[in-house]
Amino acid sequence: MMKIVQCVPNFSEGRDLEKVEEIVSVLKNKEGFKLVSYEPDKDYNRTVVTLLGNPNDIIEALIPFTKKCLDLIDMNHQTGEHSRMGAIDVIPFIPIQDTTMDECVEYANTVAKKINEEFSIPIFMYAEAANIKARVKLPNIRKGEFEGMKEKIKLEKWYPDYGNAEIHPTFGVIGVGARIPLIAYNIDLDTENTKRTGFIARTIRFSSGGYRFIQAGPVFLESRGHTQVTMNILDYTKNPIYRVLEAVKMEARRYNINVPSCELVGLIPKTALLKTIKYYFQVEGRDFNEDMSLEEITKYSIEYIGFRDFDKSKIIEANI
Amino acid sequence: MMKIVQCVPNFSEGRDLEKVEEIVSVLKNKEGFKLVSYEPDKDYNRTVVTLLGNPNDIIEALIPFTKKCLDLIDMNHQTGEHSRMGAIDVIPFIPIQDTTMDECVEYANTVAKKINEEFSIPIFMYAEAANIKARVKLPNIRKGEFEGMKEKIKLEKWYPDYGNAEIHPTFGVIGVGARIPLIAYNIDLDTENTKRTGFIARTIRFSSGGYRFIQAGPVFLESRGHTQVTMNILDYTKNPIYRVLEAVKMEARRYNINVPSCELVGLIPKTALLKTIKYYFQVEGRDFNEDMSLEEITKYSIEYIGFRDFDKSKIIEANI
Repeated sequence: MMKIVQCVPNFSEGRDLEKVEEIVSVLKNKEGFKLVSYEPDKDYNRTVVTLLGNPNDIIEALIPFTKKCLDLIDMNHQTGEHSRMGAIDVIPFIPIQDTTMDECVEYANTVAKKINEEFSIPIFMYAEAANIKARVKLPNIRKGEFEGMKEKIKLEKWYPDYGNAEIHPTFGVIGVGARIPLIAYNIDLDTENTKRTGFIARTIRFSSGGYRFIQAGPVFLESRGHTQVTMNILDYTKNPIYRVLEAVKMEARRYNINVPSCELVGLIPKTALLKTIKYYFQVEGRDFNEDMSLEEITKYSIEYIGFRDFDKSKIIEANI
Repeated sequence: MMKIVQCVPNFSEGRDLEKVEEIVSVLKNKEGFKLVSYEPDKDYNRTVVTLLGNPNDIIEALIPFTKKCLDLIDMNHQTGEHSRMGAIDVIPFIPIQDTTMDECVEYANTVAKKINEEFSIPIFMYAEAANIKARVKLPNIRKGEFEGMKEKIKLEKWYPDYGNAEIHPTFGVIGVGARIPLIAYNIDLDTENTKRTGFIARTIRFSSGGYRFIQAGPVFLESRGHTQVTMNILDYTKNPIYRVLEAVKMEARRYNINVPSCELVGLIPKTALLKTIKYYFQVEGRDFNEDMSLEEITKYSIEYIGFRDFDKSKIIEANI
């Protein structure tokens, strides 16, 4: 078996599509890994890139990728709905095949060191790659964002893991980490009321008393004219999609708000979808069989979860 | 205003009703506080006592109450569905009117010291009254129960807050604490399958990834012929009843299990019920008014939550 990791760099440009194309161009048609997708988002002003393949080839390619972001993005003039602390905001490594979490922590440190040496961009190590407990959770590091980081990084407790106590003046800082597959899952609500959507998000997110492995918040999508509960599911084995989806519907019901659709940013493991399809099959009294094809999984995911802009290529296993 | 606290001692006898009567007799018709209720449970083999009134008068009365439990209960021969570590298992103090949490911590320490000096029963301080972080959560202290405590208490990290590293041979140990009003809430399931009920309990409890302020587990009620999800809601402002009730119904649906009723052990603050009534009113499009009478709150709680064995006297405010 071949070592395969997933790497999901997020960069802070999602509106100027020419720039987006130029940045991702250095990741296209490379030996050793696949550019599975890149998803620019106008409202977030952010693009999520998904790479899958040999860890060393991915690390190699992240250097010219960082150079492009450095040349084309100036954080002093960047705004968007998604919080961010750098032109590349985060670079997480995820073990997929024949790789351990410890190895992913090593890959994360290798690329962090290289980027810092080459471009003098300070790096914070997060999630499984964190060296300090207060840095395990990314929102802790990112609090204050690019603008606040200028002062924050000067505090002793926020001295970066790589680099000095000074942000890069146009790039900011990067969070580099290792983690299990995280699901970036957003639930659309047919309301423009961000306050109510915020209330609903708080009912499911851990920091406000909700589910243990959910980070969530409200976003208004200008381009679509409605809000959504945007979330990270940090452990889908403990907090499956159906559970948060049904919890959101339950809370939305009191405001007479409907849930017309959902979306997924980046990839999802097959088992995460099967877990949710199984729930709806059981509710409807249908026979469930674990061994369904990726095509069937795709079909039932759209039918039961209500994914929009979803196809088979969103499933990790379809890309290996 | 008068200082009023709630104190909810739990003792480990719920089957021999003569003994139960004799134990609670020392709490009846006393000056300064009210014996609001005592609820013996056959399956749990445990009685929950609720006292409301002047803290010093309650502390005073807890000494003869402890003596009765010591005389009538031998933990070496006690069995039941509820985990327990002593003839009196816990004594929590809850601020209700004109008292602070800090004062309740003081009351807890006063009674703990008195009981230990009088009867040589070791005491662990828990919740807000904990002196050690590992003792904040009661289940951590109680793990191993009466039987395991003989050895556990000899470990350096489990040296009791009052007394020596040796359990009382027939009484065991007591947890004494202070906390905000906790809701002891049980959801009945129309199944005898404890394994499935356990699965459902795990979907809502914090320790398995569920809601942050929920402790829950499965119990089979021999006397009623069905299981229930038994739980403590540690913070009803963050995890209201309707949310856990609807979450349990949602999980139960996949197994075609119904939720015929619920029960409350001990008292509940008015606002906790209003929060849940409001949800169901909103779902049904009814006008909601905070200023309903205790009678109306009782009626709607039974109607929407499905409480059995419930009346106005279960509401804290009806007893002041």
